[in-house]
Parts: sequence; structure tokens; C-alpha cells
Amino acid sequence: DGGSYDAVHDASSPAAGDCCAQQSSAQHNWEMNYQEAAIYLQEGENNDKFFTHPKNAKALAAYLFAHNHLFYLMELSTALLLLLLSLCEAPAVPMLRLGIYVHATLELFALIVVVFELSMKMRWLGFHTFIRHKRTMVKTCVLFVQFIEAIVVLVRQTSHVRITRALRCIFLVDCRYCGAVRRNLRQIFQSLPPFIDILLLLLFFMVIFAILGFYLFSPNHSDPYFSTLENSLVNLFVLLTTSNFPDVMMPSYARNPWSCVFFIVYLSIELYFIMNLLLAVVFDTFNDIEKRKFKSLLLHKRAAIQHAYRLLITKQRPTGVSFKHFEGLLRFYKPRMCARERYLTFKALNQSNTPLVSLKDFYNFYEVVGLKWKAKRNREHWFDDLPRTAFLIFKGNMSRLNDTMHTVVAVNGIWILVETFMLQGGNFFSRNVPWSYIVFLTIYGVELLLKTTGLGPVEYLSSGWNLFDFAVTLFAFLGLLALAFNMEPFYFIVVLRPLQLLRLFKLKKRYRNVLDTMFELFPRMASLGLTLLIFYYCFAIVGMEFFAGVVYPNCCNTSTVADSYRWVNHTVGNKTVVEEGYYYLNNFDNILNSFVTLFELTVVNDWYIIMEGVTSQTTHWSRLYFMIFYIVTMVVMTIIVAFILEAFVFRMNYTRKNQDSEEDNGIVLEKEITKEEVIGIIELYKRSSAATETSQLQKIVLQMDKYGQMSTLFLGRRSRTKSDLSMKMYEEEIQEWYEEHARKEESETPLQEPAPASNNPLKPLSLRHRSQTVI
Amino acid sequence: DGGSYDAVHDASSPAAGDCCAQQSSAQHNWEMNYQEAAIYLQEGENNDKFFTHPKNAKALAAYLFAHNHLFYLMELSTALLLLLLSLCEAPAVPMLRLGIYVHATLELFALIVVVFELSMKMRWLGFHTFIRHKRTMVKTCVLFVQFIEAIVVLVRQTSHVRITRALRCIFLVDCRYCGAVRRNLRQIFQSLPPFIDILLLLLFFMVIFAILGFYLFSPNHSDPYFSTLENSLVNLFVLLTTSNFPDVMMPSYARNPWSCVFFIVYLSIELYFIMNLLLAVVFDTFNDIEKRKFKSLLLHKRAAIQHAYRLLITKQRPTGVSFKHFEGLLRFYKPRMCARERYLTFKALNQSNTPLVSLKDFYNFYEVVGLKWKAKRNREHWFDDLPRTAFLIFKGNMSRLNDTMHTVVAVNGIWILVETFMLQGGNFFSRNVPWSYIVFLTIYGVELLLKTTGLGPVEYLSSGWNLFDFAVTLFAFLGLLALAFNMEPFYFIVVLRPLQLLRLFKLKKRYRNVLDTMFELFPRMASLGLTLLIFYYCFAIVGMEFFAGVVYPNCCNTSTVADSYRWVNHTVGNKTVVEEGYYYLNNFDNILNSFVTLFELTVVNDWYIIMEGVTSQTTHWSRLYFMIFYIVTMVVMTIIVAFILEAFVFRMNYTRKNQDSEEDNGIVLEKEITKEEVIGIIELYKRSSAATETSQLQKIVLQMDKYGQMSTLFLGRRSRTKSDLSMKMYEEEIQEWYEEHARKEESETPLQEPAPASNNPLKPLSLRHRSQTVI
Repeated sequence: DGGSYDAVHDASSPAAGDCCAQQSSAQHNWEMNYQEAAIYLQEGENNDKFFTHPKNAKALAAYLFAHNHLFYLMELSTALLLLLLSLCEAPAVPMLRLGIYVHATLELFALIVVVFELSMKMRWLGFHTFIRHKRTMVKTCVLFVQFIEAIVVLVRQTSHVRITRALRCIFLVDCRYCGAVRRNLRQIFQSLPPFIDILLLLLFFMVIFAILGFYLFSPNHSDPYFSTLENSLVNLFVLLTTSNFPDVMMPSYARNPWSCVFFIVYLSIELYFIMNLLLAVVFDTFNDIEKRKFKSLLLHKRAAIQHAYRLLITKQRPTGVSFKHFEGLLRFYKPRMCARERYLTFKALNQSNTPLVSLKDFYNFYEVVGLKWKAKRNREHWFDDLPRTAFLIFKGNMSRLNDTMHTVVAVNGIWILVETFMLQGGNFFSRNVPWSYIVFLTIYGVELLLKTTGLGPVEYLSSGWNLFDFAVTLFAFLGLLALAFNMEPFYFIVVLRPLQLLRLFKLKKRYRNVLDTMFELFPRMASLGLTLLIFYYCFAIVGMEFFAGVVYPNCCNTSTVADSYRWVNHTVGNKTVVEEGYYYLNNFDNILNSFVTLFELTVVNDWYIIMEGVTSQTTHWSRLYFMIFYIVTMVVMTIIVAFILEAFVFRMNYTRKNQDSEEDNGIVLEKEITKEEVIGIIELYKRSSAATETSQLQKIVLQMDKYGQMSTLFLGRRSRTKSDLSMKMYEEEIQEWYEEHARKEESETPLQEPAPASNNPLKPLSLRHRSQTVI
Repeated sequence: DGGSYDAVHDASSPAAGDCCAQQSSAQHNWEMNYQEAAIYLQEGENNDKFFTHPKNAKALAAYLFAHNHLFYLMELSTALLLLLLSLCEAPAVPMLRLGIYVHATLELFALIVVVFELSMKMRWLGFHTFIRHKRTMVKTCVLFVQFIEAIVVLVRQTSHVRITRALRCIFLVDCRYCGAVRRNLRQIFQSLPPFIDILLLLLFFMVIFAILGFYLFSPNHSDPYFSTLENSLVNLFVLLTTSNFPDVMMPSYARNPWSCVFFIVYLSIELYFIMNLLLAVVFDTFNDIEKRKFKSLLLHKRAAIQHAYRLLITKQRPTGVSFKHFEGLLRFYKPRMCARERYLTFKALNQSNTPLVSLKDFYNFYEVVGLKWKAKRNREHWFDDLPRTAFLIFKGNMSRLNDTMHTVVAVNGIWILVETFMLQGGNFFSRNVPWSYIVFLTIYGVELLLKTTGLGPVEYLSSGWNLFDFAVTLFAFLGLLALAFNMEPFYFIVVLRPLQLLRLFKLKKRYRNVLDTMFELFPRMASLGLTLLIFYYCFAIVGMEFFAGVVYPNCCNTSTVADSYRWVNHTVGNKTVVEEGYYYLNNFDNILNSFVTLFELTVVNDWYIIMEGVTSQTTHWSRLYFMIFYIVTMVVMTIIVAFILEAFVFRMNYTRKNQDSEEDNGIVLEKEITKEEVIGIIELYKRSSAATETSQLQKIVLQMDKYGQMSTLFLGRRSRTKSDLSMKMYEEEIQEWYEEHARKEESETPLQEPAPASNNPLKPLSLRHRSQTVI
């Protein structure tokens, strides 16, 4: 991102006192405009609101300082450092325990870095905007509290109850890289109102049934579940999760078989009806929010493009942006782009074949700028140049190879299954490597070799499936080495062999679709997982503060779940039998244990054993912690389910709608460039004294000369994103949105509009050349 | 349905040798046409295929015999009798045990009735169509097998292993009244292919993880879960249901904390990803099927209407159906309809104000024929006629009453909660009735009285909510009586008091929507429940045959789940402590127990305890039964979830789409009738010697004379069905479907078309009168 830094020096040079105002030198003014346009486009892409747009040169400097990957990485690492500190603070993971001095100092250091980041942000936003920005204000408050607490810890030299550590997450959430997490959180909070409505319905029925259950079953003294109204409520809450199901029914069922009706009705209403209703409501809200989000993002991008466009047109030519200005923009927007790609992007945008890109064409900026350009080769494989016979051998084998390999993989799978079935425990990792292992590995190796030669290594590794094949074969080879040289710690690699079987899933279209969707979903899933982890972190901190060390073997002998915590070591005959109820392992003794415990609570099964264990050692109120955690994870999990549902249903609908179109392999655009065009561009660059950038362009000219071509075809390619799919799905509605938006804007006062560089004496230099080349 | 029987006599009179052919008397021919048109319309409504349409008079007689409620009831009761027999056959419910002679004779009797029903069907369908009808053929085969088995039982005088009893369900499924169940089953089978695909993916990952788990954890000898590959597979299958979750992880977790990664990854992939994918796929398929079903039903109805229309037009007037013929049709289609309603239906259909109903108008037949007609009254309440002061008192109080009552209900709810919380077990039903009970009951009683007088009893009870209020208040009153007269068996009524609180849910729009949707869904939910019960029945029979009597207290002391089946009665100090693991109650000893056990398996939690208990007493293969049951219920439950999701999401979308339209209260249609029209109709009836039916019409004329009106306004009303909603949702697509269908029909040969009564000498009598009345 060196380009941005250079730009800072440009911008902060005394000439440009006001970012969007009068200029001393025209060239400088244009540079300022390019930069500001690039910033607008970045804001559009990142969905940053325009009121945070830098308003003067000082703000611009701060903005540029705070908007690059180095700064982002600093943000992220500070946040992670703060979060990871809880590994070392008491109650710490034994191996990572640090002295109070050490971790408190580390914390203070990290907090000071956060202060620095915030001050940069303030400098960029200005005090007024800073105050208006809610998230930043919350962060500031949390920072303040954390600071005081860290100092208190340092002074007292002992950790007090610090539940506020749970708030450290906000530093992570506020990171630029965690934008997806922020969006998820927003979506979760937006889904809450309808969710809470239905939750109340759920709890309401629970209360009614608790009263009924208390009246019906409390006369039965052998029934501990309904002995008081509180027990009745708690047990029906747990029953909602089915965690205590047949057990809670059994005492009353043993006395009167018809009492099962109570439980069947309760479960039918609560679990099978209202819980699903919850999912339906969340799914529906989620869909609605998703669509509205897409709409607002689309309009925001459009507004950003309009802002940028206004900065790039001249009064002389108000109908479009010339290549010279476009190139200037891209220099700031994507400094890594080479001259050839800039020109191709311009060509791809320009659909009217005039030398200027009109606003209508410019609207496609975001779709086009992400394309990766490559000269189209006529040859499919490297061996296409070989003599005909050799070519045919390769070609024919390539197609047959796949079928053979699938058979081999299937045989290998069955082989592994049978082999594993035969060895009933014991020492599987014998010194001598089994011959089947070597045979199959050889076959895979040969396949790898053939395919690499067949497609060329770059082409081979560009496919996800081939990469997977390669990795699995490599692992198998490493496993063989581990076996052969008897390196015990690496035996686990051998165990990964069955993953080969995954290759079979290429065969069926539905699986391919599923796996493709899975990969498309992966970033979003990861961000949802991270969101869940943030909730985990908060609960883990609270859990550690309250419940650290409360459960241990034989801790809960007075409670109803005593068996699960029992650890007895008694002798039967001449053998020592250890009777272990392992549940004391599900504790909050350090943050890692807490995470595992919380995962177990998320899976829900038998969670009440953990709850009752902790409750028996503390107070009844501890149940609140577990119940709230259950409800929170229910919300998050329901949203995850809704998200997966939405994504797949959307994808399936999309597939159904576009059944007739060919196989989906990303967005592809074709553009032809003639020799004259290239030469014109080279001259343009030479004139603007940026001759160093033309080397690639000159290479193209040489290439064309060599093959005697007058033009070269280039292919622009990128993978399809969710946004592309949505564009296609909502095609008709999008036009309506645009019109509605345009009408709304007309009625409002026009946005604060930076003056186009109208009094710019520089004529767009490029135009002369371009008008030659186009026609 | 007396009308249908009369029609039978008509049709089977020697005059009409062929149902849709030459006639001896014109009147008779018209009657035949009316009847056949009515049959077509019924077939359209019930989605019966037209190839089962009766083809001659004999078939028609059989058709009419087999299509009325008496016959349907016979079908249903025979099927139920057959199903209920399993209560009495060994292993029987103790109280209902019958001798082998008795139940085998009953079975034979029921089977003979089924034979009779089938022979009627054969008579109606003809042998060829009978053979072509798959469901009927399956039923015949099952019947044959059951017959032989019943005779064998009678001869040997002992019940053998009769798994075939599970097939008895087919008699229920084939009942006319169980059409919804059949549709559900069809939908389930249609959803299966994609479901199975994803299930395979699920099982595939399970196998891979089982192999991995076996390699990783079997060296740990304190880990019983992964000791063999079979154990590994079974435990991962159970883990899929989360039923053994933290336990299965604990032994390895205790040894190496990082082993939790294996389980977290497994659960994340299987439970949180693929299981949701399963739901997504089923949901999507379900939606698709639902739409296609709606489409085919719509087109089928349209075809039926076309068939009926062709039978009602004459060659002289091929552009429409006159009232006379329409009235003739309705006499067969809805014999209970009175003359006034017939005419109003005709008026409602006829949108062009000509004396004939064109085909285009006739297409709305099904929407209009269900309307209930009522003369529109100008008065809203009965007290509108009272003097002004009294009126205002009633009016003002009515609106304030509701708010007051909601407060009272809330207070009552809190009161009950607090009261219940105060009594900690013991004897709650003291002799003296608590005063709060009487106070609240009095308030409810007064409210009931006020509302009934305010709205009039009929109006009051026509609202579902008022009905609910009434029922709860009545129950509370009965509870009071039970308390006052100390009738212990009725104490449970007292316990229903908290249901009053449900009234609070009227307050919020979302809850009203939810509850309305719930009521709309109820028929469909019930049919899905019945479908589930049919699966239960099959599994219960199989379970009883194999596992009856295998579990009992202390049966499974050698298995890993011994504790849950233990029943120990030991003395500690001077107290006898009974340690009960109640799981022996979850057995297959009779059909009722089996149902409860299967419900517990459906809820899934701790199902493996039941499975392991049975497995330890039988063979390893028993697990197959439980696993298959799990998968089957998973399918059905997923479809139920998908159904609820679909219904609510559909409803919410509908609400969103029609946000601006007023409150939804069914379909309402307004029609005005003038005095002359009524007189014309009366004359028409008199001429066709059906003067007895005109009494109601004459009443209208008298009414008009009394008030000096020239016309009366009638309101037709019916509740909105799913089909109405779908019609509105798919508005645009429906037109396309029609066009596509019309194109397809043109290209195919036209349907076998009964000749319109072209050579009919009777002129449509009604026309003269109607042309007068309309203009």
C-alpha cells in the first residue's frame, strides 16, 4: 500500500489546504480529486457512512493513516492480545500462568495502544462526528473502565472480581477485519424483537404447565421433579431442551400411565410447535433483513460511485470520465494494479465505445474492478503443441483417468473399512508398512504425476478439488514416512487416509453443489462462528469469575446428579476398579475449560447435570447463568440455522431459475485490444512521465508482433459472490429501488457536492489518442 | 345426502341405458347431465382422477353407493376396528385381553367388510381400471395375506409372529376421510430422494469419523465407546443425536484435553452443518412440491369445471349456463342448499349481468359455492333499536369492558402464580374454597353475562375467542362445584384455571396472527400427526413381535446402561430406600406402552438407553430397528418442521404483501336482489313443480313488502383457506399456468367429451324471467 502513503505526502503538502476546494496547481488538484474519489469508492465498498468522510487535509492524513493494513493489523493484534490475556490471568491455564505484574503491564500496554488508535480516529473524524459515532463512544467508555481496573490491579497487586473483562470483546468487534462479525451482531439484534415475542409465548406456556404439573404431580412424594413450583419450573425449562426427558416423566408414569399425556402435550406444544415457530420467525426476519441489507448496500455503493464520478468529470466534458482520470483514480484505489489491467478495466466499463465512460457505465465499477485479466490462450493443455499422436494419447487418457481413479478410491475406501474392522484394537501400527498402503499410495502418486503433466502444474493446482487430492496424497505419503521411520507422534497422519473417500463426492451434481455452496458460505460461516466465540468469551469470563473451582471429584454428593461427579477407587476381588463420573471435568477453572464446558452446554444434551452440579455448590441463582446462556445460544444457533437455510434455499432457487444456463464457473468477461490502442496508452504514460509502468504493455506489443496479430483477446475472471447472485435474483426489484431512491434524492437537498475540477486548465490528454484507437 | 340416493333411482331407471348418451326423454337426459356434471365437480374438488369417472349406469350406481358418508364411515370404522384389534391381541393391554377365537373372528368379520367395499369399488371402476389403480391393488394383496393369516390363527388357535399386522395401516390410509394422510405420505416419499442424498453424506462422514475415532481412542482402555469399530460407529450415530454427548467424550477428554477437538469438529460438521442442510433440502423440496401440488390441483379443478360446463350448455345457447341448468346441477352437487342460496350463488358467479353464466365466470365455481349467505342487517347490536341513552350505556361499556377484563385476567394470573408459590406441596385442595377463586369467577361470570347481552348469544359464540372464554369460565365454575362438593376425581378441573391467562394473547397483533395461523394449520397438523401415528403403529407392531417382554427390572445388569434398569430395595438405617431406574417401563409389552416408548425415541434424548437395554437382552441386530426408527422419525419430523416453517413464512410474506389491506376476516361478497327477480324465481320453481322449495323466497318477498324495500342486500361469507392465499400469492404465475395448460391441451387430443344435450327439445325455461329481472 505504498501508493497511499505517497498520496499522504502529496495531500499534506501546503498546496492543498482544503481537501475539496481551490487549488494552486491543476495537477495537484487532480491528484486530490483522484484520491478523494478513491476514498469514496472505498467507503462504498466497506459500507462506511459518508458522514465519516474526511473533511480536510489533516483529517485526510489521519484517515489514510488509519486505513491501511498495517494499522488494521495493529488494531487486531491489540484486541487479540487483550483477549488472550485471560489465558494468563487468574484463574489461568496452568502452563500459561503469569505474574500479576506481568499481565497487568501487558494489559496497560495494549490499552495504551487502543488509546492511540482512538486518538487517530478522533483526529480523522473530528470531535463532533466522534461523539455521534455510537460504537466508538461505547468503545471509549469500555476503554476507560478497563484502564482504571488495570491500574487498580497493578496497585493492589491482586486480581479482584473483574466481570468487566467480558467487555474486552468490543475491541475485537470494532476491528476493521471483523466487519462481518459486526454485521452478524447487528442482524442478531434486529432479529431479537420478534424472537422475544415468541420466547415469551414459550415461557408463558412453560409457566402454565409448571403450575399444572405442580398440582398434578407434587402429591407423589417419590417424584422429585415437581415437589415445589420452583423445581417444577426448572424441570420444565430443562424439558424444553429435552435434556431430562424420559427421566422427568418416569416417577409419575410409574404411578399412573396416563400421566404421560401431560408430557406429550407439553412437548408437542413447546418443542414441536413453538420452537419451530421461533425458527420460522427468525428465518423470516432474517430473510427480510438480508434483502434490506442488500438493498441499502447497493444504494450506498451507487451513491459512492456518484460521488466519485462527480470528482472525475470536467466542466468541458461533463458526460463522462476519460481514461486519464480513470487511471488516476485506480492509482489510488488499487495501487498494485498494472497499466495493462487498468486499461482493460476501463475498456470493460466502457460499453458505449466512446472515449468517455458515462455515469451509467461507471455504475458497474465494483463488478468490473475485481476481475483478473489474462490473455486468452488458444491452447487448452500444454501438450496441444505436441505432435498429434502424443497429443491424442494424453487427451484420451485424461478423460479415462478420472473414472479409473474413482474406482480406485472406492476400492481403497472399502479396503480401509474392512481392514479396520478386522483389527479389533491392539497394536495397529506395526513396524512393517502394509502392502496395500504402498500400492494405493503408488496409484495416487502416479495419478498426481499424470495430471500435473497433463494440465501443467499451475492449471492443476488452481482447482480446489485437485488441491484437495494433492493434500490428501501428500498426507498419505507423510504418513508412510512416519510409519516407515517409526515416528510415533506423526501416526495421526495415517489416520487421515479415509479422507480420500471425499473425492467420490465429486461424482454427483447435488454433492458438488452442496460442497460449492459450502465453500461459498465458508467466510460467512466463519464470521458466525467468531460471533458465537465472542458470546462464549463473555460467558466464559463471567463463569470463571463466579464458578472457578466449584466443581471437583465427589463435590456434589448431596445433589441429584451426584453420580456424574463421583470418583471412587474401590477394590473388587483383587482388581482395583475406578468408578469415574467425569463431569467434574466440565468446569470453569480456566478459559479453555470454560470454552469446552460452554460447547457442551451448546450441544444441550445433559446440560442440566453441569447446571445442577454448579448449583449444588453455589446458590440457586446460578441457574440463571445457565438458562440465560441457553437462551442466548438458542438465539445464535437459530440464526445460524436460519442462515444456512437461507443460503441453501437461495442457492437452490437460483439454480432452479437458471437451469438452462451452462455450468456455473464464475463471472467471465471478454475484451479485445488492438495494437494501436496499446501504443496509444504507452505514449500517454510516457508523456505523463510514468514510463516505468509501460514495460508490460510493451511486452504485449512484442507478443503481437511475434505472432503477427493485430489484436489480442483478454479474459477477465472472478468467482461469483453472493452479491452477484442477489443481483440476478432481485433483477426486477433493483430497478424499482433505484427509481425510488432517485425520487427520494430529488426531493431532499442534494448531497454536499465537491466541485468538479471545472476550472482545470489541463485538457484530458488521453482523449486524442483514445478517439483514434476506438474508431 | 338423501338427494344423491334419489338420483340413483333416477339414473338406474331403464330409460338411461348409457350415462352420457342418447336419451328417451329430454327431462331425464337433463337430469343425467346434471348428475354427471355434479360428479365431475366433486371429482375436481376431491382431486380424483378422471379415469375413475363412472362410465355407465351400473358403474354410476356403484359410484353413488360408494360415495356417501355412510359408506365412508363404514370404511373408516372397519379400518379402525382392524387397527384397534392390536390392543386385544397378544401381547395385549391387560384390561382388554380377548380370547384368540374372539379377536380372530372380529378380524375375519372386518376383513369381509373390506372385501365388500373392494367389490363395490371394482363394480364402479371396472376390472381394467381396478387393476391399473395401484393403491387399490396393494390393498387387495394385503387383504389377501391378512385373510389367510386370520384363518391360520383361527385354525391353529395360537397367534404366530404376525409382523404383517403392521400393514393394517393401509386400510386406514385408503379411507376417503384420510385423503390428507395420503397426500402427506406422497409428499414424504417425494421428498425422499434429496433427503437420502444428504443422509448418505451424513453417514459417510460418520463412517470416516468412526474409523478416525477408532484409531485415535481405542488404545485408551478406559474408553468403552471406541473399543471396536462397531462400537465406534454406534456411538457416533448416537452422538449424531447428541444423546450421549458429554459422556462419549469424557474418557478421552480426561486423558488428553485436546481430544475434545475431534468431537467439536464432528458435531460442527454433522449436527450443525449437514443436519441443517437436510432441513434446507427438505424445506426447499417441500416448497417446490407444495407449489406444484397447488398448480396441479388448480388445473384439475379447472378441467373439472370445463367438463361440467360442457354438460350444462345447449347447442342453442353455447355461450353460457342458464339458471335452470345451474339450479339442476346444484340440486345434485349440494342437495341441502335452499332455493335462495342457489340463486344467490348463481348471481355471485354471473359477473357479466347477462342471463347466462359464461365459462370464464363459471371457473369461479369452487370459490363461490362455499359462501354462506345472510341478509345484511343494518343494526350492529340488538340494542341498536333501544332508546338512545340505553344504547350509549351499552355501547360505551362494551369497549371499556375488554380493557378491564384484560387487567383482571393479568391480576388473576399473578394471583394464581403467587398462591401456588406459597403452598409448598401438601394438601392444596382444602375443604373451604379460597375467596379469591370466588371473586374472580364472579367477575368472569359478570363479563360473560354482559357480553352475551351486549352481542346477543349467537353473535357472542360465533367468535373463537369468546368461545374459549366461555369454556374456561365454565370449567372454572365446574371446578368450584367440584371443590364445594368435594368431588375428588374432578379436582383436575381446578388445575385448568391458569389457562385463563391465554386470553392476554389477544392483545398483541403478532400473537393473534400466530394463533390464527395455528388454527388455520390445525387440520393439516392433525393429518401430519396422524401420519406420524401410522408410522408409530407399524413400528409398534414390529417392536411388539420382537421385543415384547424382553426388558424388566434388573434385566440388563451386564450392559453399560444397567443403572437405568436397576430396581433395588435396600434398608439404610431403619428406612427402606427404593432405588428405581425406571427404564424398564419403556418397553414393548403392549401397544400403548410401545407408543409411549416410541414417543420417547422420537424425543431422542437418552434413546440409546432404551436401545442398549433391548440390545443387551436380544442381539446386536436390534439396534437396526432403533436406528431405522430414528431415521424415519427424522424424515417425518423434518417434514413437519419444514411444513410449519413453510406455513408461517408463507403467512408472514402474505401479511407483508398485503399490509395496506384491512384486517383479514375471511372472504366477503355482496349481492343485491330485487323483488322482481325473486318473484321470477318463484314462478320458475312453480312451473317446474318444485313449489315446496319456494317458501324461503316468499318470506323474502314478504319481508321486502313489510319494509317497503325494492331490493335486499345479501352478504356471502366464508373463512379464507390456504388455497385463497396461494391464489393471491401466485397471482401472476397462475395466468401463465393456464395459458401453458391450454396450449398443451390443444396439442393433445381433446378429452373424451360427453355430448352436450344438443338435441334437447326443452328450451331453457328460466331465460325469459331472468332477462326481465336482470335489466
